[in-house]
Amino acid sequence: MGQTPDWIAVDWGTTHMRAWLMLHDGTILDRRDSDKGMGGLSRDQFEPVLTDLLSDLASDTKLPVIVCGMAGSRQGWAEAPYVAVPCVPPGGDAATRVASDHWDVRILPGVKQSNPADVMRGEETQIAGFLASEPDFDGILCLPGTHNKWVHISAGEIVSFRTFMTGEIFALLAEQSVLRHSVDTDGWDEAAFTAALSDTMSRPSDLAGKLFSLRAEGLLNDMPAAEAKSRLSALLIGSELAAAKPYWLGQQVVILGEGAVARAYEVALNAQAAMVRCVDAENMTLAGLTSAYSQLQESTS
Amino acid sequence: MGQTPDWIAVDWGTTHMRAWLMLHDGTILDRRDSDKGMGGLSRDQFEPVLTDLLSDLASDTKLPVIVCGMAGSRQGWAEAPYVAVPCVPPGGDAATRVASDHWDVRILPGVKQSNPADVMRGEETQIAGFLASEPDFDGILCLPGTHNKWVHISAGEIVSFRTFMTGEIFALLAEQSVLRHSVDTDGWDEAAFTAALSDTMSRPSDLAGKLFSLRAEGLLNDMPAAEAKSRLSALLIGSELAAAKPYWLGQQVVILGEGAVARAYEVALNAQAAMVRCVDAENMTLAGLTSAYSQLQESTS
Repeated sequence: MGQTPDWIAVDWGTTHMRAWLMLHDGTILDRRDSDKGMGGLSRDQFEPVLTDLLSDLASDTKLPVIVCGMAGSRQGWAEAPYVAVPCVPPGGDAATRVASDHWDVRILPGVKQSNPADVMRGEETQIAGFLASEPDFDGILCLPGTHNKWVHISAGEIVSFRTFMTGEIFALLAEQSVLRHSVDTDGWDEAAFTAALSDTMSRPSDLAGKLFSLRAEGLLNDMPAAEAKSRLSALLIGSELAAAKPYWLGQQVVILGEGAVARAYEVALNAQAAMVRCVDAENMTLAGLTSAYSQLQESTS
Repeated sequence: MGQTPDWIAVDWGTTHMRAWLMLHDGTILDRRDSDKGMGGLSRDQFEPVLTDLLSDLASDTKLPVIVCGMAGSRQGWAEAPYVAVPCVPPGGDAATRVASDHWDVRILPGVKQSNPADVMRGEETQIAGFLASEPDFDGILCLPGTHNKWVHISAGEIVSFRTFMTGEIFALLAEQSVLRHSVDTDGWDEAAFTAALSDTMSRPSDLAGKLFSLRAEGLLNDMPAAEAKSRLSALLIGSELAAAKPYWLGQQVVILGEGAVARAYEVALNAQAAMVRCVDAENMTLAGLTSAYSQLQESTS
């Protein structure tokens, strides 16, 4: 270990956690990963996991640790109660302080909405990071993931949002349902995706009847797995886009994400003539944590 | 073991199998269950499983064994190729004979449809059983299950059908998704079911956006698990009914099924002013296998 970091940024989700060793000036000294997500930990296991991951760091001073994500849920390290919309993405001053012998830990709150009932934990920090670089943004953020979020941003605030379980449903159907036999491939068929998306957008209520057809087409007509997988994705994303239309129609949309899933949403939204661009989600998480850290430094100096 | 049966009726599905020890006159001597479904067996394991389950039966004569279900699929005991609609439910004369040292085994075929692509294996035998008692039925059969089927019957034939994965999707969402925390109960809230069904039928394309709300309502507003579970069921069944409307609207509908799931479909269809009644599905399976056996007896006598 060379230089000692000034603080630690942590994104602690359900299935994994990431830590960045940071300097005041934004330099990243190191980035570390762990599969010790919140879902597998009891309350008293969070600090040992963190200390284990950072065991090489000097322990005579309690380094600041800024945490976002599911570690702040009721079943997590310590509950960081939700802030209600409309609100600016909660920053360092809204964080919950956690007692620790080794670290100065602050956990950022999630955001809630009463009607329709909805919650986020972690995405609000990505949003804060995005708004740090584009403070005047007015429009829609789309955050693809296990639970995809559509977020309306105006005047620096989260106005409203809606969560779709599309990513989780895709994974369950593709890996555990009878469709797993039909979509078992790393391949992708963009033409099939676009065609099935267009079908679904024009008749979203047919979704339920079209899923088993993917299996039957494989059994009877040898539909290639890449086509079946792309059509499955189009059915689910198309059905989400149909329900989320009030969010994206005629709006400026920024997708916080990268890789195949973000690309699928970009293709799908482009096919609907929406104005779309993508930005890197991990960078936004780190920018949001950095913004919370800076806010705390200012308030204590 | 008392009286020796004249033949064995077998319903061999993906996750379990059932055998009935039968006399010519329709008397059931015994009924036996096994969890050795087709899904966990390789081709050469079917006969040992059967012989094991019936180990007390005299083996000097090869008893007739009539099998329906997934044992006839390509990955099963022996492939019994699909018969294409429109067709009468395939009977004993369409069965595939399987070589066996101990039994005279016949496996009944499934039914396929080209457009939209669809398949059934096992349900065709329930349909044959139903038509044995109501040969003049003209209308719709609804067969709830892991993969729910809607079947148009006219002039004794299967005219067309459509499969919905509603049962499997409900199980995946209720047991394995983030919603499992919100719907973990044996309870049921029929008022919540009926209200959510009505909502879903009027706006079926909202399905994707309403699922995560069940979780958020639990976190923010302590929605009872029985209400969340009933609403989840209503979202999925409502979405199926919306897509299957051409099948049931203005038609006579018979549900082949019993228990909570069949009851949910009955309530849902009644709420849509459809003409519905329920008949026992297991009885229909046995009646269909009996009909196939009688047909074979006649053709060999």
